[in-house]
Amino acid sequence: MDAMGLGRFIAIEGGEGAGKSTQARLLAEALSLRGIACKVTREPGGTPGAEAIRSLLLDPPGEGWEPESEALLFAAARADHVARLIRPALARGDWVICDRFVDSSRAYQGAAGALGDEAVVALHAIGSSGLLPDLTLVLSVSPEGAARRLAARDGSHADAIGGRPAEYHAQVDAAFRAFAAADPERFALVDGDGPVEAVHARIMAALERLC
Amino acid sequence: MDAMGLGRFIAIEGGEGAGKSTQARLLAEALSLRGIACKVTREPGGTPGAEAIRSLLLDPPGEGWEPESEALLFAAARADHVARLIRPALARGDWVICDRFVDSSRAYQGAAGALGDEAVVALHAIGSSGLLPDLTLVLSVSPEGAARRLAARDGSHADAIGGRPAEYHAQVDAAFRAFAAADPERFALVDGDGPVEAVHARIMAALERLC
Repeated sequence: MDAMGLGRFIAIEGGEGAGKSTQARLLAEALSLRGIACKVTREPGGTPGAEAIRSLLLDPPGEGWEPESEALLFAAARADHVARLIRPALARGDWVICDRFVDSSRAYQGAAGALGDEAVVALHAIGSSGLLPDLTLVLSVSPEGAARRLAARDGSHADAIGGRPAEYHAQVDAAFRAFAAADPERFALVDGDGPVEAVHARIMAALERLC
Repeated sequence: MDAMGLGRFIAIEGGEGAGKSTQARLLAEALSLRGIACKVTREPGGTPGAEAIRSLLLDPPGEGWEPESEALLFAAARADHVARLIRPALARGDWVICDRFVDSSRAYQGAAGALGDEAVVALHAIGSSGLLPDLTLVLSVSPEGAARRLAARDGSHADAIGGRPAEYHAQVDAAFRAFAAADPERFALVDGDGPVEAVHARIMAALERLC
């Protein structure tokens, strides 16, 4: 918590099977042990409205969404999530740890979906006043490591986005790396391969800049 | 159908109880008698994806939508509708008659919802390449006429948008009139009071400019 009584906003980004949700949980536990109140949440989702939009996104009615509709739906879910959960939590002084945020839209719809970065950034400006995390952790894993984690998920099946071709996911990964390289102040690129405890330790080291 | 083999796109706009869907049907029947293939559709909706979004808009989960999320959801539904139904129909040479289009978003979320016209227009540019109707008919009715039509609807109950306060709907009506005044090329303001046949005749007269 900084001197203004405002919490910090940390996003964890990366492709499918990068270990984001596990690391979000471990990070919240570690911060709680330091006496920091944490709210762990995810996108798309986090509020009743945004979770309803999540269902439309991951299990689309009809023929699936074009990149334009998909980006607008993500922005709508994010606007609800920011207004109803993230901003109120930060205002209370809680830290918010979010499994995916706007950089996922930039990577998936903007880069891999070819909508372009400018359009995604414009939607975020309109929907959520352009709110950005204080720190965005990009978990980068080898294709083998991601495949291993995805195979280990109980009863998982690929959703409408996770099930897209390998080339799409390669573009997503490249985009996350490019964002991190372009803005080292806001991003930390974290090696996500290896044991979860080792990855967690790398994340805690990356967090030092917030203290 | 114009010389290029492209259909014409007509939107019918107006507040709740203005008689839009009745007039859309009568207009399609009249055009069909002239040998023009017509597709009658509505917003939000018109495609499986957009109808699913319509359900979220009119019967929201959680606490209802803020203007930002609401505008993004309308733009997402519209993008699907334009890509999957409106553009293909126009390309076939059909005429499209749409019960509400982007000017409803400008009036409801932009003007009455206070999101502003620029944001709504920007969302439409990103989602639907800014497609505009060839002619937008604004049905203007007296508050008494609208109340009479709404009361006559079988088993109707106000949805999340229709049920907003009278002041909101007054702002919507004022916005539609202002749009029509600002762009008489694209808009025709039609008196919607009186018998449906009389209103239909006014609409047919307004359509002369397309021939």
